[in-house]
Amino acid sequence: MKKLINSPADVLADALRGIQAAHPDVRVDTENRVILRGEPTRAGKVALVSGGGSGHEPMHGGFVGRGMLDAACAGEVFTSPTPDQMLAADQAVDSGAGVLHIVKNYTGDVLNFEMAAELAQGEGIRVETVVVADDVAVQDSTWTAGRRGTGTTVILEKIVGALAEEGADLDAVLALAEKVSGNGRSMGVALTSCTVPSAGKPTFELPDDEMEVGVGIHGEPGRERRPLATAKEIASMLVDPILADMDATGPTIVLLSGLGGTPLIELYVMWAEIAPLLETAGVSVERVLVGDYITSLDMAGCSLTIVKADEEMLRLWDAPVVTPGLRWGA
Amino acid sequence: MKKLINSPADVLADALRGIQAAHPDVRVDTENRVILRGEPTRAGKVALVSGGGSGHEPMHGGFVGRGMLDAACAGEVFTSPTPDQMLAADQAVDSGAGVLHIVKNYTGDVLNFEMAAELAQGEGIRVETVVVADDVAVQDSTWTAGRRGTGTTVILEKIVGALAEEGADLDAVLALAEKVSGNGRSMGVALTSCTVPSAGKPTFELPDDEMEVGVGIHGEPGRERRPLATAKEIASMLVDPILADMDATGPTIVLLSGLGGTPLIELYVMWAEIAPLLETAGVSVERVLVGDYITSLDMAGCSLTIVKADEEMLRLWDAPVVTPGLRWGA
Repeated sequence: MKKLINSPADVLADALRGIQAAHPDVRVDTENRVILRGEPTRAGKVALVSGGGSGHEPMHGGFVGRGMLDAACAGEVFTSPTPDQMLAADQAVDSGAGVLHIVKNYTGDVLNFEMAAELAQGEGIRVETVVVADDVAVQDSTWTAGRRGTGTTVILEKIVGALAEEGADLDAVLALAEKVSGNGRSMGVALTSCTVPSAGKPTFELPDDEMEVGVGIHGEPGRERRPLATAKEIASMLVDPILADMDATGPTIVLLSGLGGTPLIELYVMWAEIAPLLETAGVSVERVLVGDYITSLDMAGCSLTIVKADEEMLRLWDAPVVTPGLRWGA
Repeated sequence: MKKLINSPADVLADALRGIQAAHPDVRVDTENRVILRGEPTRAGKVALVSGGGSGHEPMHGGFVGRGMLDAACAGEVFTSPTPDQMLAADQAVDSGAGVLHIVKNYTGDVLNFEMAAELAQGEGIRVETVVVADDVAVQDSTWTAGRRGTGTTVILEKIVGALAEEGADLDAVLALAEKVSGNGRSMGVALTSCTVPSAGKPTFELPDDEMEVGVGIHGEPGRERRPLATAKEIASMLVDPILADMDATGPTIVLLSGLGGTPLIELYVMWAEIAPLLETAGVSVERVLVGDYITSLDMAGCSLTIVKADEEMLRLWDAPVVTPGLRWGA
C-alpha cells in the first residue's frame, strides 16, 4: 500500500487537522469530527447537515460553507459517522428553524442519521431527512437496501443549500431536496480498485485488462466485469443505463466526477464522448462539473450523474457558493 | 495501461474537445491547440500566454480566464507545444499592449517560446518572457538545463494575471513576474510512476516499498530513492530542501499539489504535517491551495511550492479570478 499517510488508524484525524489548517473559513470540531462553518447559523436559516464515511473528499466536508452545507460529519474511511456526531452537528447548527439531514442510501448512514434525528427531536430540534438513492447500477448492494446514493448528493447539497441560504423554511427546503433527489441518476465505472488504509490491500481484484461497470463508491460490485474499452464505449456504458431509467430530455445539471486516482485529462476525454451522446438523446446540459467531487480513495475511474433541472433549480445552482470544494459568485 | 482514453494518439485532441464542451467561458482553437478566453483581449491590456506539454491539468488550459491567462498552448503529453502554436496564441490575444510568455524551464519549451517570440516580434507584437525554474530537487535534469519549472508557475499566473487585468503595462507585468519567479521554490515526491499514453508503460520503475524524492513533473529522477516513509517524514523531505534554499520567513503563498493519482484525503494528511513545520520555521502561510493544480498524469505523490509574498502580491492573489481551475471573488 503506497499512501501519503502516517498510519491507517490516524488517517481521519490527520486529514481533519489538514482541512482545518488549509481552510480558515471552516471550523473543525475535532472531538466530534464535524466540519462546521466558521460563523454560527443565521437566525431563522434552516441548517443543512450531511456526512458519511471519509474517503470521498471533497464530499462532504469540502461542501461546508455559505450557500451549501452548515455541517458535515466525517466517519472513519468508508464507515458511517455515529449518531453522537450527528447530534453534535445538529446542536451546533440549529438556529431554531430546523435541520435537514442529507443522507446517502447506505444502511449504516441511514440508521445512524435516523437515530440522531430522534435524539435531536428529543431535544426540541426539528429534523427532516432526505435520502439520496440515485445509482442505477444495481438494485441492492453490499451495504445498501435499495439503490446506493452517490453524485446527486453533491448537486442536491448545492441547490438546496442555496434555497436555505435565501431563508426558505424547512418544509420548502425538504420539498426541494426530495425533488432534486428524485430527479437524479448516476452510474460509475472503475478501472482499478481502491485500497482502504486499514485493510492495506485492494478492496477487490481486477485483472489488468478488465473494468468494473457500475461500481459503487466503496468498491461494491457493479453490473458486470467487462474487458477494458475505449472512452467512447465507456461513455455509452454510463449514459445508456441512466437514460433508460429517467426521462432526461430538457434541461439538466450534470456531474462527471473522477474517483480519486484518475487525472483530469482523462475526465476531459470522457466528457468529450459523453457530451455528444447526451445531445443526441435530447438531453440539454445547462451546467456541468468535470473534476473530483465524489471520490473513492485512490480508485481509477469516473461516475456520471444527471439531474433533471427546472429554472428554479438552475437559478439556485448559479447562486453564490463559498466552500473549499465548490466556489463561485462571491 | 488502464486509462479512460480512446487511443494514445487521440488523447490531446479528445481532451481539448472535452475542455471546450465543459467550459463555455473558454474558446478552444482546435487547429492550433490553443485555449483562449471567450472574449477578445481588452484594448490596452497586456496579454499573458503560457503553455507546455499536456498531462499537467488543470495547468495551463484550466487557468485561462479573467484575472489569469489569456491563452494556453497545449503540446502533446509531456511534449512542448510548437512555435507555430505560440505565435497563433500571441496573434490571437495581443491587443497592442504586448504579450508576456510564461515558460517553465524545460529546454523544448524555452527554445520554442524563444522562437515564437522572435516570430511575433517580426510581426510587430512586443513579447517579453519569464522563465520559471523553481524546483530545488536537482540542478540539471533529463530535459532541463538549470532547475526545472513547476508549481510557482501556477502562483505566478494568478498574481501576474491580476496585475495585467488592472491595466499595468508590459514592463510592470514583466517585473512582477520576475519577482514572483525569483521568490518561489518547489520540491516533489512520487510514490508511483506515471504512464505516458503513447509509451503504454510506466515512465520509471519504482519498487512497492520505495519512493522518488525530488521527482520531476514528467517523472524525471529526483535526488534519491528512499524507503516509503510516513507523511510526517515526507513533509520534512519536502520542506527542508526548500527552506535551505530560500529565506521564507515572513508572509508566503503556498501550494500543495497532488500529482494526479493521489486523492485529496492524502493531501490533507500531508498538509497537516507540513503546516506546523512551516510555522516552526517562521514561515507565515498567508494563503494556501491544497488540491490538484499541477499534475503528472496518474502519478501518485505531491509537490510543495512556497512563494515569498509581499502585501501587493497578496492583494493581487485575492483579486477576482474566473477560470476552469481557479475561481473566486466573482
